[in-house]
Amino acid sequence: MNKEVLIQVHNRIKPFIHKTPVLASHLLDEISGVNLYFKCENFQKMGAFKMRGATNAILCLSEEERHKGVVTHSSGNFAQALSLAAKQLGVKAFIVMPENAPQVKKDAVKGYQGIIIECESTPIAREEMAEKVRLEKGATFIHPSNDDNVIHGQGTAAMELLEEQPNLDYICSPVGGGGLIAGTALAAKYFSNTCKVIGGEPYNVDDAYRSLKSGKIEFNETTDTIADGLRTFLGDRNFPIIKAHVHEIIRVEEREIIQAMKLIWERMKIVIEPSSAVAFAAVLREKEQFKQKNIGVIISGGNVDVNNLPFNHKEMLMV
Amino acid sequence: MNKEVLIQVHNRIKPFIHKTPVLASHLLDEISGVNLYFKCENFQKMGAFKMRGATNAILCLSEEERHKGVVTHSSGNFAQALSLAAKQLGVKAFIVMPENAPQVKKDAVKGYQGIIIECESTPIAREEMAEKVRLEKGATFIHPSNDDNVIHGQGTAAMELLEEQPNLDYICSPVGGGGLIAGTALAAKYFSNTCKVIGGEPYNVDDAYRSLKSGKIEFNETTDTIADGLRTFLGDRNFPIIKAHVHEIIRVEEREIIQAMKLIWERMKIVIEPSSAVAFAAVLREKEQFKQKNIGVIISGGNVDVNNLPFNHKEMLMV
Repeated sequence: MNKEVLIQVHNRIKPFIHKTPVLASHLLDEISGVNLYFKCENFQKMGAFKMRGATNAILCLSEEERHKGVVTHSSGNFAQALSLAAKQLGVKAFIVMPENAPQVKKDAVKGYQGIIIECESTPIAREEMAEKVRLEKGATFIHPSNDDNVIHGQGTAAMELLEEQPNLDYICSPVGGGGLIAGTALAAKYFSNTCKVIGGEPYNVDDAYRSLKSGKIEFNETTDTIADGLRTFLGDRNFPIIKAHVHEIIRVEEREIIQAMKLIWERMKIVIEPSSAVAFAAVLREKEQFKQKNIGVIISGGNVDVNNLPFNHKEMLMV
Repeated sequence: MNKEVLIQVHNRIKPFIHKTPVLASHLLDEISGVNLYFKCENFQKMGAFKMRGATNAILCLSEEERHKGVVTHSSGNFAQALSLAAKQLGVKAFIVMPENAPQVKKDAVKGYQGIIIECESTPIAREEMAEKVRLEKGATFIHPSNDDNVIHGQGTAAMELLEEQPNLDYICSPVGGGGLIAGTALAAKYFSNTCKVIGGEPYNVDDAYRSLKSGKIEFNETTDTIADGLRTFLGDRNFPIIKAHVHEIIRVEEREIIQAMKLIWERMKIVIEPSSAVAFAAVLREKEQFKQKNIGVIISGGNVDVNNLPFNHKEMLMV
């Protein structure tokens, strides 16, 4: 693996994704004492960076494999991303979702012509169902975060960011399943000599933080965080990259996530999802450490249910 | 008045304002059947187009006048705009606000170093108080919308929009006090041969619609609209321009305003205020009439109280 691989990946997916803008905000720079550069993947197709990895994974398949379709298990952004990427490339996408997934998420997948296959709401049930679909349909299984092609696709966001802002001291990304931060770490390694990669993670699901401490993949005992994209755990493809190339993981409280999200909504006037706010919350929490540094922050997505926003839950802000 | 005047105004205010982006959305084009170009003044300094007019009005003052300060009455975006424009230019801004104005609005003005002067909550009380400040301090009164320099400043948004998208068939702007739509009408007249200007206005405060019908300035009997920036009425400086150069005013229901706002938040991932959504709601309401046309929509601002959003008021969407 070298920088040429990422350049190839970027060239491959470019016609199918948006080159998202990098935004700055004097107000947020003032508040934080940091020079912030937000890579706005909330403006990506289907509203999240996952579009990059999903597109690359499908483009890496043979004609025959494409003909048989792809399958994944996800109730989040990857379900939508794989559906839309598949639709754009004329491929069938089978999406295994728990039967109790919110209707709004099922509708989004259907909107992108993903074929929903319901299963019980346990991790084992969804893995078994995905395996069943794989065998029955001959579809290729694509994991939302623990897949080399997915990881490389996600890395193109940081690659574009460094192209536009080569003097970054740090890039901070949220950590969920590990695909985004692993890809980001590879991009920083290949396209900068000095840029360090840090992760933001909710205290309540700090499996990646603990995994880096212990040296092996740790799991969460709860999924109790507003950052619903970050409830998953690392995998054997992305953890070695994270272990080798991620400088630090900073944990944040739920209250800090909501405050960071509110700051970005109010000051930058852009809609971001709670998982995205985790990276900015991490920078804010450690702002003394980052004073006057140039920090890229990956805004991972903007898919929120506007009927159900956290801002008026005053009790959450009072903690 | 000719196009040179607007070019001079633009050159004058340029160092003190943002050149805001023009955004497009395939999804919203598909939904509406129209080619939409959104001029995003929600990304303007202090979050609204009012920054343009306020800055121009202050820059048109003599050194002596600037030394004595400016005064206005407003509890909305113009209060913040005049405060920030004055701060940027080292001028004092006296802002007359009703004593019962929301604390969040008072805080915003104070944040920009505006000097708040409270008065009773009636139109007469605020005019009297502004006049008192004008006499006592020697400050120049600047009306939020019925002032030639303010109107010309607001017109620079449409001027930038037409520079970037010269082939617009229409520009649609919200109509409140009339400053924005009058400036927009002038810009369209001077910088396009074909572009017509239309206005969007809530049914509940349709004074401008009725004024165009009757040929004289009409008033509202209620202020009962979610589009809180549009509760005001026209004035003798802007109404003649509107009468001469505005093609049509389209009225929209409250429900349509909220739906348009929700569409833009969810699909474009940008935060806009209800008054801004009125222009898009007007285009959607008459989409058959605008089929395949190129329409510029002025997103006038993005200052919302995220603790108090309309989306979960289901009853409003059910009307």
